[in-house]
Amino acid sequence: MSEGAKSLKVAVLGCGAVGSQVVRLLTEQADDLTARVGAPVELVGVAVRRLDAPRDVEVPEGLLTTDATGLVSRDDVDLVVEVIGGIEPARSLILAALENGASVVTANKALLAEDGPTLFEAAAKAERDLYYEAAVAGAIPILRPLRESLAGDKVTRVLGIVNGTTNFILDKMDSSGAGFSEALEEAQQLGYAEADPTADVEGFDAAAKAAILASLAFHSRVTASDVYREGISEVTAADVASARDMGSVVKLLAICELRPGPHGDQVAARVHPAMIPRSHPLASVREAYNAVFVESEAAGQLMFYGPGAGGAPTASAVLGDLVTVARNRLAGTRGAGESAYADRAVQPMGETRTRYHVAIDVDDRAGVLAAVANAFADHDVSIQTVRQEGRGADAQLVVVSHAASDAALSATVDQLRNMDIVREVTSVMRVEGGDE
Amino acid sequence: MSEGAKSLKVAVLGCGAVGSQVVRLLTEQADDLTARVGAPVELVGVAVRRLDAPRDVEVPEGLLTTDATGLVSRDDVDLVVEVIGGIEPARSLILAALENGASVVTANKALLAEDGPTLFEAAAKAERDLYYEAAVAGAIPILRPLRESLAGDKVTRVLGIVNGTTNFILDKMDSSGAGFSEALEEAQQLGYAEADPTADVEGFDAAAKAAILASLAFHSRVTASDVYREGISEVTAADVASARDMGSVVKLLAICELRPGPHGDQVAARVHPAMIPRSHPLASVREAYNAVFVESEAAGQLMFYGPGAGGAPTASAVLGDLVTVARNRLAGTRGAGESAYADRAVQPMGETRTRYHVAIDVDDRAGVLAAVANAFADHDVSIQTVRQEGRGADAQLVVVSHAASDAALSATVDQLRNMDIVREVTSVMRVEGGDE
Ligand SMILES: NC(=O)c1ccc[n+]([C@@H]2O[C@H](COP(=O)([O-])OP(=O)(O)OC[C@H]3O[C@@H](n4cnc5c(N)ncnc54)[C@H](OP(=O)(O)O)[C@@H]3O)[C@@H](O)[C@H]2O)c1
Ligand SMILES: NC(=O)c1ccc[n+]([C@@H]2O[C@H](COP(=O)([O-])OP(=O)(O)OC[C@H]3O[C@@H](n4cnc5c(N)ncnc54)[C@H](OP(=O)(O)O)[C@@H]3O)[C@@H](O)[C@H]2O)c1
Repeated sequence: MSEGAKSLKVAVLGCGAVGSQVVRLLTEQADDLTARVGAPVELVGVAVRRLDAPRDVEVPEGLLTTDATGLVSRDDVDLVVEVIGGIEPARSLILAALENGASVVTANKALLAEDGPTLFEAAAKAERDLYYEAAVAGAIPILRPLRESLAGDKVTRVLGIVNGTTNFILDKMDSSGAGFSEALEEAQQLGYAEADPTADVEGFDAAAKAAILASLAFHSRVTASDVYREGISEVTAADVASARDMGSVVKLLAICELRPGPHGDQVAARVHPAMIPRSHPLASVREAYNAVFVESEAAGQLMFYGPGAGGAPTASAVLGDLVTVARNRLAGTRGAGESAYADRAVQPMGETRTRYHVAIDVDDRAGVLAAVANAFADHDVSIQTVRQEGRGADAQLVVVSHAASDAALSATVDQLRNMDIVREVTSVMRVEGGDE
Repeated sequence: MSEGAKSLKVAVLGCGAVGSQVVRLLTEQADDLTARVGAPVELVGVAVRRLDAPRDVEVPEGLLTTDATGLVSRDDVDLVVEVIGGIEPARSLILAALENGASVVTANKALLAEDGPTLFEAAAKAERDLYYEAAVAGAIPILRPLRESLAGDKVTRVLGIVNGTTNFILDKMDSSGAGFSEALEEAQQLGYAEADPTADVEGFDAAAKAAILASLAFHSRVTASDVYREGISEVTAADVASARDMGSVVKLLAICELRPGPHGDQVAARVHPAMIPRSHPLASVREAYNAVFVESEAAGQLMFYGPGAGGAPTASAVLGDLVTVARNRLAGTRGAGESAYADRAVQPMGETRTRYHVAIDVDDRAGVLAAVANAFADHDVSIQTVRQEGRGADAQLVVVSHAASDAALSATVDQLRNMDIVREVTSVMRVEGGDE
């Protein structure tokens, strides 16, 4: 590196939870960044909505502006960090930045999951980098390993705990026996859940991340609308207790899989609560932590664990991308662009087969087990284990099925509910992370 | 990517456990590799010691050769994979390949830890890539995240379980109560330990990996000889039981830290058995799995988990590097070279302060606790907790100290051993992964 090398000029769009930490790290780590990039990285502007809002960081004099469009059209800006969030104006600003010749780093999962291909095409056309490690699982390096470290391998499945709010709630329910509402309230009090928790609790946030993970892992285009989604608001204390009884724990999982289809492998992506065995590495992911478990043909089982959100952790991921993008720029190259060469079809959820755990309050009399087993058999759902718990008025059967389709299972549960000997079907939940 | 782009020619040196899987993946994944690299990757030669040895893979006709030197000097070879292992001839072959203009991927931790700087300088001089993800923790992507994803952050500590053999043995001792020799024998029977287990059991393998991790994490030069090393052959069933009693587990850890020194931060790197709380993410790493736990200022705590060895997993890491190096070559660039810009001093082990767990069989009479506490105080070792277990002839005191120097602790233990009321010091072990 030569002394006084020409600096790279960075514009940061947004100065909230993440943006303020990006600005802080750019300042505090300036010397290390210079050494790692090979040239100084200079902050030239920070776009916000309100000039006078309180900030978690002191933005150098004169850099704050409300004119984001003007900032990304400056002809001296090399790198643009987008941490505003949401669809617009984020999308237009990123497209304008690329068109104007800047490389872009973003943390915007919602935008990527809704309209990634538009952004990727714009980056390819402009011959610029578009990096977004921070968009999935915050600080955890997962996109780069998927995209680069596993580039010589074949990824077959990704199982992720990618939403900290829901993991916190489910962990609370597991450790304290609390119901969903009580655990949600605690999460809100502690700042782990927002006042309107819908995006997290109903799985929208996790579904966006699942789309991004599936696209990268399987080199195909998967958008949020391709992802089957179920949230955790229906998970009951009884479900969690039932999981505990069978040595399992309930987690909200983002599951991306390669599945055989009529014309070659298909991609399946879904988000729903599921029981996983306590011995599974994902089971010990506590509180608001995230983790992504990857299965590939040669590498086997890998797991990546860490904080899935928070200003500073997310900013760390943004800065890691920024260093790479800055280095590429100095070298006059680009990183691997998005590759969707495999162009795989998305498997409809109806065809996705999973194992199910069904807990049924039954009358305690002879023939009950046979009757219940028949209901499963009627719909071709094969039973892996069945266990009776309690006696008399507390008698309960817990059935774990082999892999079955959603449709077959729903029909089975309907039939069970109409049986005389069945008092109540207390828990129906998918089971993941074991043998099929 | 244009149809019929000029192919990149690869030579593989070594066709043993790892090399045979590299050859297999190069063949089986050829189409995916072409799509991901942007040009076909063509295997042009495989160097071995014995042409007629049985192989785990069918090497295409005519590619096997015993003339490794000839292979790396061919002027059509773009990429060289070194999976022979050991210092020579691996070092000379890598140097010759770089000089000849090839980029190199290697899995050779022993060579990198002993003489990395020579290789890095040769790569820089030749303006070629030298990648080695497979050298640490097999298939687990850890070097790329440290080097790239965390490039905008400040790593402060790396704690790794980076040797599968010793983790298998310690896990067995923990789960079955077996002693070291018994667990080692089982590991040998199951193929997790070699007939001569010294390199694994005495921590040499882990120390090599610690040197590589410390160099990357702290942008400094650390070689194997800088790493303090203690193996697990002295770990007793009593140590493991004592750990269990306090909710901990014994692991062989590779620990790399940034520590304040007289002239700025220093690097400390050490490998030794230590007790960590069962709630620590590393505690649940079972059997022969590896994991690396990273602490950084902004990202917080991250963990990377997976198979630390094995032919196919290690080959997956080699191929990931190969794709990057091949892409760089097509683009006419190189990845980030080794950066030792921080050039930090290595802290001598004598100055490294850790917490200790000491279990002492004592006479069960009044004043014992005070006497033991005085022995610690005499050497300025401050006590965090002390617990009495058992009564009468089974009376035991378990002391956990605050951070203390090795020297102070040794002096304390010597003094304890000479006390009348002390029947035996049954366990002395470092404690990691909690508050200091
Ligand atoms: N927070 C996390 O833990 C986390 C984790 C991973 C990914 N992300 C992603 O990171 C992005 C940012 O999240 P955040 O939590 O930092 O959001 P935030 O705290 O709400 O900050 C948003 C920032 O954008 C600014 N802004 C809003 N509209 C603008 C406009 N039209 N023009 C210019 N500036 C505008 C706001 O300005 P004012 O300050 O003036 O209102 C604010 O500074 C989102 O895509 C999010 O999904 C966040
Ligand atoms: N095995 C693992 O799980 C693992 C994990 C991580 C890293 N690594 C590293 O990967 C490297 C290879 O390990 P490995 O387990 O594959 O070793 P290996 O099974 O012993 O194979 C070594 C190969 O090198 C060949 N060879 C030896 N000397 C040679 C020479 N002078 N010229 C040409 N070829 C020569 C051997 O030929 P013949 O077959 O004809 O004898 C053999 O094919 C080592 O650096 C190791 O540390 C291994």
